[in-house]
Amino acid sequence: MRIGIIGAGQLGRMMALSGIPLGLHFTMYDRSVDAPGAAIAPVVTGAFDDLPALARFARGVDVLTFDWENVSVASLRAIARIAPVWPPPRALAIGQDRLLEKRLFQRLGIPITPHAAVDSWRGLQQAIAALGVPGILKTRRLGYDGKGQAPLRHPSDAAAAWQLLCGQPLLYERFVRFTREVSLIAARDRAGRIACYPLAENVHERGILAQTRAPFPDAGLQRSAEHHMGRLLRELRYVGVICVEFFVERGRLVANELAPRVHNSGHWTIEGAETSQFENHVRAIAGMPLGSTRARGHAVMVNLVGSLPPARKLLALPGVHWHDYGKSPRPGRKLGHLTKVCATRRDRDRAAAQLRRLSHR
Amino acid sequence: MRIGIIGAGQLGRMMALSGIPLGLHFTMYDRSVDAPGAAIAPVVTGAFDDLPALARFARGVDVLTFDWENVSVASLRAIARIAPVWPPPRALAIGQDRLLEKRLFQRLGIPITPHAAVDSWRGLQQAIAALGVPGILKTRRLGYDGKGQAPLRHPSDAAAAWQLLCGQPLLYERFVRFTREVSLIAARDRAGRIACYPLAENVHERGILAQTRAPFPDAGLQRSAEHHMGRLLRELRYVGVICVEFFVERGRLVANELAPRVHNSGHWTIEGAETSQFENHVRAIAGMPLGSTRARGHAVMVNLVGSLPPARKLLALPGVHWHDYGKSPRPGRKLGHLTKVCATRRDRDRAAAQLRRLSHR
Repeated sequence: MRIGIIGAGQLGRMMALSGIPLGLHFTMYDRSVDAPGAAIAPVVTGAFDDLPALARFARGVDVLTFDWENVSVASLRAIARIAPVWPPPRALAIGQDRLLEKRLFQRLGIPITPHAAVDSWRGLQQAIAALGVPGILKTRRLGYDGKGQAPLRHPSDAAAAWQLLCGQPLLYERFVRFTREVSLIAARDRAGRIACYPLAENVHERGILAQTRAPFPDAGLQRSAEHHMGRLLRELRYVGVICVEFFVERGRLVANELAPRVHNSGHWTIEGAETSQFENHVRAIAGMPLGSTRARGHAVMVNLVGSLPPARKLLALPGVHWHDYGKSPRPGRKLGHLTKVCATRRDRDRAAAQLRRLSHR
Repeated sequence: MRIGIIGAGQLGRMMALSGIPLGLHFTMYDRSVDAPGAAIAPVVTGAFDDLPALARFARGVDVLTFDWENVSVASLRAIARIAPVWPPPRALAIGQDRLLEKRLFQRLGIPITPHAAVDSWRGLQQAIAALGVPGILKTRRLGYDGKGQAPLRHPSDAAAAWQLLCGQPLLYERFVRFTREVSLIAARDRAGRIACYPLAENVHERGILAQTRAPFPDAGLQRSAEHHMGRLLRELRYVGVICVEFFVERGRLVANELAPRVHNSGHWTIEGAETSQFENHVRAIAGMPLGSTRARGHAVMVNLVGSLPPARKLLALPGVHWHDYGKSPRPGRKLGHLTKVCATRRDRDRAAAQLRRLSHR
């Protein structure tokens, strides 16, 4: 079976690495032949909204998927008539728009933060009056890794935030005094069966995911997250892997956002779970049954951002796994990650501190 | 760093799958562009004794290795002047010749079976007289998966065995009434550090490895095997992964043969050990430190020979991992393998029986 991945970033690369042993064949579509996926599969180049080029690409494969979110939904819908697209384009359309996302969560009874759509300066003033400060003004679309966000500590911050982000559809959201951010990675296969991984806890630094630890051991929150996830996946008739990030606020989950794809906060599953998120994504879209999502121990995943620390030094630490995406260094760019799986939480937390220290030169 | 693999079979394919996450680049050299490795890396075609073609291939990489044993040692030695070849060609020369292998084991104090070189009909008669029956007449070179072997149950079987194998250098070996066959996979890095995996137990069917279970829990045999392995690796100034198969005869190890490469009886390490044999081979030849060889549980690996059973049915079993090498079916051909890692030996043994049943249609 030939799988076409739109986007040849590190996520596509890791999908192909996990799918080749299953006997699947991969081709990728990206703007650049230098993308990380090119080390493992042929890359067809083209723009992400070039419908004729995407259609040609679709004709050469049996199933289509995508490894990032800024693909044109209209194009995806069009080529879905040539080869099935999983996850469904509707999930991507929702994932691309924070307002649609919140509305869907709300409709499904999944708790969210108080928020308001903002389309004008006057609208922002009204939102601040209604929801108070602190809060965050966000673009509805195309935000990632903390980009497209402006925090408001005082009402007087509104002008600067407006200046920064106006001209595009926005959203004002009350700041959640969350204690933790956790994410739930889940997969749904073509037969409708769902498998959820254990919750993982995320730590961000300067708006970018720095570290994930899993499992996050709270049976009540796990149950609650899986309940929300089940509703969401069935509503979307989802096929593939999805991620929902939640804040933990006063012991309960508040949905922050969804990503209709494999996710950075699930990279720990490569070594830390029985079946990785990448393999389960590929199994799902290829019509295979899902693999076990059981954790193999207590894992920590550390992102390598901006520049890579010396590989030899880190690989010399027992049990450390190194993932270099083959990208050129640039400030704020995710270049790779490290994972270590320990027998106990305590060992894992110690390893997490050590890896954080050694990976920041 | 660019790694050149001579041979693009399933072993090369799995090396590349484990080395790409380390940021390494792979090119392969094979007789056919249809080889399993072609799904993951560019394959340069040529004969395995075409020195000019091999030299051109060597000029394009930083380090050379091989994924099978029937490569010309003379060619390897010649191209080692262009790029380092690991494992060392001397190890391959020994691995290619059962007599050199036994002489080396003997010199290092590693127990072996009574044997004699056979170069004539008269020599065979003398060997049978000296060593008795039952025994096995084997070719010294180019034997694998039970090929190039003729068992002798009675002295009168000698003529048929001679007929089958004469015309090439042979070896007569007394049949060992072994209770079990185990193998030790080990790695040595460029700094001379050695890491051994737990012993694995192998079951053959019709001369082909059918199943491997690991760890084989015998601390005394493990110590003894590691002792032998240490002597062997240091003697050969080895770099990379090696496998030595031993018979267990009356509670002690008798070396059967060595393979100077990653080995089928180490495939369980992909899911069953902290670092796979493939990753450790690649780490070693790339000058990186070795990863932990700790077992993650109790693993069983089942070879898929001749034809593949239905993937969906097997993938539906919890914890089963599927490896399809992308080869066309042919009787006796290794097309893939399955692995399952369990929490206890008992569960693993049950899984082994189930997988054996389901993988033989």
